[in-house]
Amino acid sequence: MSQAVGVKRIDILIEGATIISPGLGGSDEKMAVVDEGAIAIDGERIAYAGPSPAPLEFRNARKRIDASCLIALAGFVNTHTHAAMTLLRGYADDMVLMDWLNKKIWPIEAHLDSEDVYWGAMLACVEMIRAGVTTFADQYFFMDDTAKAVRDSGIRACLSRGLIATSPDSSQALRENIELCQTWDGAANGRITTMLGPHAPYTCPVDFLEKVMEAAEELGVGMHIHLSETLGEVEESRAKHGGMSPIELMDSIGLFGFRTLAAHCVHVSAKDIEILSSKGVGVAHNPGSNMKIASGVAPVPAMLRAGVKVGLGTDGACSNNNLDLLEEARLAAFLHKVANNDPTVIPAEQALTMATLGGAKAMGMDSDIGSLEPGKKADIILLDMNKPHMYPKHDLTSHIVYSARASDVTTVIINGELVMEDGVLTGIDEQEVLQTAEERAKALVRKA
Amino acid sequence: MSQAVGVKRIDILIEGATIISPGLGGSDEKMAVVDEGAIAIDGERIAYAGPSPAPLEFRNARKRIDASCLIALAGFVNTHTHAAMTLLRGYADDMVLMDWLNKKIWPIEAHLDSEDVYWGAMLACVEMIRAGVTTFADQYFFMDDTAKAVRDSGIRACLSRGLIATSPDSSQALRENIELCQTWDGAANGRITTMLGPHAPYTCPVDFLEKVMEAAEELGVGMHIHLSETLGEVEESRAKHGGMSPIELMDSIGLFGFRTLAAHCVHVSAKDIEILSSKGVGVAHNPGSNMKIASGVAPVPAMLRAGVKVGLGTDGACSNNNLDLLEEARLAAFLHKVANNDPTVIPAEQALTMATLGGAKAMGMDSDIGSLEPGKKADIILLDMNKPHMYPKHDLTSHIVYSARASDVTTVIINGELVMEDGVLTGIDEQEVLQTAEERAKALVRKA
Repeated sequence: MSQAVGVKRIDILIEGATIISPGLGGSDEKMAVVDEGAIAIDGERIAYAGPSPAPLEFRNARKRIDASCLIALAGFVNTHTHAAMTLLRGYADDMVLMDWLNKKIWPIEAHLDSEDVYWGAMLACVEMIRAGVTTFADQYFFMDDTAKAVRDSGIRACLSRGLIATSPDSSQALRENIELCQTWDGAANGRITTMLGPHAPYTCPVDFLEKVMEAAEELGVGMHIHLSETLGEVEESRAKHGGMSPIELMDSIGLFGFRTLAAHCVHVSAKDIEILSSKGVGVAHNPGSNMKIASGVAPVPAMLRAGVKVGLGTDGACSNNNLDLLEEARLAAFLHKVANNDPTVIPAEQALTMATLGGAKAMGMDSDIGSLEPGKKADIILLDMNKPHMYPKHDLTSHIVYSARASDVTTVIINGELVMEDGVLTGIDEQEVLQTAEERAKALVRKA
Repeated sequence: MSQAVGVKRIDILIEGATIISPGLGGSDEKMAVVDEGAIAIDGERIAYAGPSPAPLEFRNARKRIDASCLIALAGFVNTHTHAAMTLLRGYADDMVLMDWLNKKIWPIEAHLDSEDVYWGAMLACVEMIRAGVTTFADQYFFMDDTAKAVRDSGIRACLSRGLIATSPDSSQALRENIELCQTWDGAANGRITTMLGPHAPYTCPVDFLEKVMEAAEELGVGMHIHLSETLGEVEESRAKHGGMSPIELMDSIGLFGFRTLAAHCVHVSAKDIEILSSKGVGVAHNPGSNMKIASGVAPVPAMLRAGVKVGLGTDGACSNNNLDLLEEARLAAFLHKVANNDPTVIPAEQALTMATLGGAKAMGMDSDIGSLEPGKKADIILLDMNKPHMYPKHDLTSHIVYSARASDVTTVIINGELVMEDGVLTGIDEQEVLQTAEERAKALVRKA
């Protein structure tokens, strides 16, 4: 090569993309748009992101990607899901919550085994990679198997074992969660991180949560918990705990002294929002799930105004019914406009920020992911803009949030590795995943 | 051919598809699912739809489509849009309605010419065909050019010229609408039908509407009108017209004696709903537009319970921002569940019905389109279900409404013609449409 002498060879050079990212040469709140951009990837990290051509030292690349009709974004961050529940997609819909859980979901979940969880999680990982989701936060059981699916699929995830104190195996579950943290934290070249997963205040009494906090202290990990998803659980908390909301209760026992990722936060008061903000609690907002299950409308604009770190989540495929974070960004923008009777709330830029950097912040991972900045992990997605619904190109940020589809994602890079190129998954036998998931789902229905 | 003697040759035979359609062997309300189905197309119409193999007389086909991993649906019906506004997609978002209209949309619309409308409508047609929309109802200006785009693209449409009595050219506009009906009704092998397009009661006083009704009487056509989209216009109507809502006012002057397609109907009373039901008015419900512009939440479950004919619409790409009717079906299901605090309202089957047969009924076209039944026009779409987000196959109707994407549509047949096959548009130079739309949009922005 002519550039060889003295010039280091980098791994991947993306050339010609329109780069849209918060942080890049601006603030965290403002999307920078680089019309003809280049991104250089060295190992697991971004070495350069900015105008094309890249500086000379980044031009000698093992692999070059011509992205001249593509948009480059930081990978989407799915801050709340239950990946293996993908196996139950469409198994039960349009039902009242307690009927849905008691008559359909819990009975069939009782038959899930570890192999089901592996294949359900693999199906979820395939779906998420195709949709440009590069990181997800999960809480379920048989989490070793979800960890294996994360390892095998090439995606990034923060995993926790769901802990329900009221279930007979709660001590065993806590041990499993501790072992998950000990075994998997930092595994798969750092793609896997871990948390403890106390399910919710209404399923985990304070004495149990104290044990969880003890373990968190020892392990140095954070918490993934459901908070104030339904009105009923908030009313119950206030009745049982001297008028305290679930968030006030968690604050009072010191849970928020640990890094906390709180899913839902639908029925929250002004006081709750103040606590979430001042304690730096990350919120996983799940508009699709909240709408489909009719949980309610989270006061997201108020949370954002108060400086709460809000990311987006899909929740499980059982209550959404897909793992399409781009759809969540659109739903968040649409839902809060109509709910607040104000078309100016959650503008496109803010929705896209929530789907990327906002999610990274909510998970405490923003030093590594969430934007396309040198030094961050190379979690990058490329979207094809040569589609009718992306024309004319008045405003690409608007197009992504209000018109694009997950299927526009053509190429996905996670931790510097090309996991999907031009629509083809590079390291996964996709048909095997689809067929095995189908067979296991059918067998489960027979058992239920 | 061995079957030749005495056996008529049909045009297209689709084999192996999972057919999902209302009406087929059941009621209009109930989706029939035929696991291994066949559909025979003879000329413009469906000759057979049912279990595979098709009866002998339908097996000798000019063209066979192997649909063994595909779902066959009736094409989606987009009951309300302004196709040419696709040229303004993303031009202005996240603004208060009157600012958006006064400062951005109306100034740029003033520069639109007939060629802009042709290419904007072509872009819309390309986008809609790709998304499985086979019929749309439109209201705009330079409608000859929209008609030409409909003719050239192969889609089906019911066109009206938007009439605003308060504008200086209102008489000219009415003449244009009359000519549109005279020139284009029944054109393009019957794919084009027409209506009169009085914009709304607040822009068309009663004396003007009387002229419109006179023309409708002579022409034998119906009306496409915006009704009760915003709270303000309802309040204004009640103040000006002796307490009457826009719907009561239209009823009082006899407008509903003509077949009427009423867009939006967001702010409607119980009395309004009773009128819509008893007069057989079709309602175009536009959840995406209503959410994004923050118009409000239409009482769709109540309308459906009252027997109102409700279809779905995208509205213009300026306020949505795409023409994806599948997204509207999902939004309708999600929005009304959360707005009614009830996850059982608008179940998947009902959402899919609204997107197809419901839309056909709202447009008064259900004898010809909206379901896959012998004798109806062959407007058929095929969706690829071999995608991760469509697994496992617990419930395909649920998957279509809650998980599928417009991009899953691979093949589109309209009026018996294959307009898209395996993702390729058969009769349109798509790149020419995209590039020309882009150039014209850029030129428009320079003029504005």
